[in-house]
Formats: sequence, structure tokens, C-alpha cells
Amino acid sequence: MSPRQMVRPGGRSARVQESVHAAVRALESEVGRDALTVPLIARRAGVTPSTVYRRWGDLRELLSDVAVERLRPETEPEELGSLAADLTAWTELFLDEMASPGGRAYVRDALLGDPDGGNAGQCSAYAAEQIEVVLARAAGRGEAVPDVETVVDRVVAPLMYRILFRPAGLDASYARALVAGLLDPFGR
Amino acid sequence: MSPRQMVRPGGRSARVQESVHAAVRALESEVGRDALTVPLIARRAGVTPSTVYRRWGDLRELLSDVAVERLRPETEPEELGSLAADLTAWTELFLDEMASPGGRAYVRDALLGDPDGGNAGQCSAYAAEQIEVVLARAAGRGEAVPDVETVVDRVVAPLMYRILFRPAGLDASYARALVAGLLDPFGR
Repeated sequence: MSPRQMVRPGGRSARVQESVHAAVRALESEVGRDALTVPLIARRAGVTPSTVYRRWGDLRELLSDVAVERLRPETEPEELGSLAADLTAWTELFLDEMASPGGRAYVRDALLGDPDGGNAGQCSAYAAEQIEVVLARAAGRGEAVPDVETVVDRVVAPLMYRILFRPAGLDASYARALVAGLLDPFGR
Repeated sequence: MSPRQMVRPGGRSARVQESVHAAVRALESEVGRDALTVPLIARRAGVTPSTVYRRWGDLRELLSDVAVERLRPETEPEELGSLAADLTAWTELFLDEMASPGGRAYVRDALLGDPDGGNAGQCSAYAAEQIEVVLARAAGRGEAVPDVETVVDRVVAPLMYRILFRPAGLDASYARALVAGLLDPFGR
């Protein structure tokens, strides 16, 4: 993972990061991902290529950091009033986002340019945090809830495994069946 | 995936593939993975770099094909006499192989140099084929067995997800618990 985690918000280093990330996002849509180069990104961001290399090491690590930012959930999970409904809605949305062409590319980028595994771990933490919100709401309503690692194993892991390794049959009904299979022992 | 699948065994193209794969394996141990280049590999394999580029596109696709070969299981799953024992033994071995530094590197290579997903699919097919052997033996003994896709979701997917995204707590007892949790509904 880049030193991003240590960046002081609003400091120069945070501004460099934001302008470089913004340059990557803009150039991705203008020239396409395969045409991205560090000099091109640096010119658009108004920094020197050596600033980018010092900070990110290489293009793959930069793209990995940008991918993790793109995979950060933008909204709280929807609240529909039952664990089954909330977890099913979250799971369908997670599948839509991760299995989309953009989502697949970001997941691959996040994994690829990630020598120490920090970015992949952040992707997993985003999913676990959203699941924790769903579970805490359900527990607050007095529902029996599985623990978050069980939901990761039973719902997130099969979806991500199939997105990466075994895409046949990966659809919303499969995602709903994963949630139903998990919650069944809890009396639903 | 490279045209490997279409290669006629024993043909020139098969000999080129074997010599290039052998060159990659030899150079990986001699100079290390990060020092590998297509010209270096081609020289060792006794072919021209353009042969490698024509056949594999780039170094990453070549490394992806070599990784899939390395991930091919070399032995049949051990037969211990019960589904629980056989699946537990296979799962512990699968975790040992995939979570080892070499295994993690091969899984990453297989995934990342794989524009069309064929190599990742082959990795998944290797695991599914081994599981099918375990399940067929158990069914032959009259045991109740889950279907192979359920074993992929409940055992293979959590292990691979945690290897790639969430390694904390990934050990043999976790692997055994995945198998026990899957087989419990079947009366064990």
C-alpha cells in the first residue's frame, strides 16, 4: 500500500495524492486505461514523474491505490427492516458493483499493484464494515445474527471467488441463495 | 489464455511451449522472478523473443500460463475412508499449497496475466476436479454428499478469498472448520 494511509488530510502530500488520483480518473475516461503512463498522469496532475515514482513506486501501485478508492462504498447499506431483506439488498448491490466490467478491473488492479496486500485488505475491510452495519441494525431489532466473518465466508467470498475464478452462473438469484443459505439456520 | 489448449501434443508448438516453460522455471530459481525478461527466457529456451511474443503476447501472460501449470494437482486426493476425512485432508493440503509464498505468487500470476479469464478458470477447474473425485468416492460408499459447487462455495472460495484479501486467521483449524460446517447438515 502507498504511504497514503499516513497522509495528513489537507497537507501538501494529500493535495498531491488527490490531484494524481484525479488525473488518473480523468485520463482513464479520455484515453483509456491501457494508454496511461506515469509521465502522462504527472503532466495532467501538475507534478513531476519523479514525484509519482517516489510516492507510488510504479504505475501498477498507483492504479491499485486508485482502484481501492473507487471500491470504497459511497453509501450506507439500505435499511429495509429485517436482516434477510437488508443483507439480500446489500449482497445484490455488492455483486452488481464488483461483477461490472469496471468493478472487475478495479478488483484486479487493487490486487495486482499491491506488494504487501494492504489494498486487497482494504477492499475486504470495506465489505466487512458494511456487513457490520447490517448486522448491528438487525441485532438492535432483536434478531439473531451471524458474526461478520461468517457472512464474509458464506456470502462475500463465494461472490468474489466466482467473479475472479469461476464466473459461470453468477447472477442475482445465486447471490440471494447465498444469503438464504446462510440465514436459514437462524430460523428464516 | 495462450493457444496452449489447442497445442497438438508432441508437435513443434508443444515442444516450444515445454522449452519456454522449462526456461521460466529454471530462471525463476536461478535469477528470481523479478529478473525475468522475455529475451532472457527466449535465449534459455533456444527460441527467438518474437516467438514468445507471438505465442504469449507478453511476459505476464507467459507467467500466467506457467503458473497454471504449476497449480495443476500432481496426485489424486488421499482416500481415508470417509467424506469428512477425505475432504478435510484435501482441504488442508489445498490450503498448504495455495497459501505458501510460491502458491500465492502463482495464484496472483495466474489471475493477473489472464485477459480472458481462462487461466483463472483452469485453476478453479483443478480444484473442482479433485473435489469431484472425493465426492464420487463418498457417494460410492453410500454417504450423503453435497454437490461440487456447494463445496466450492463453502470451502474453496473462503480459502482463496482469505489468501488474496483477508489472510488474518487463515490456518489449518480454520480450514477444518469450513469442512465441518459444510458437512454438519449431512449428519456428521
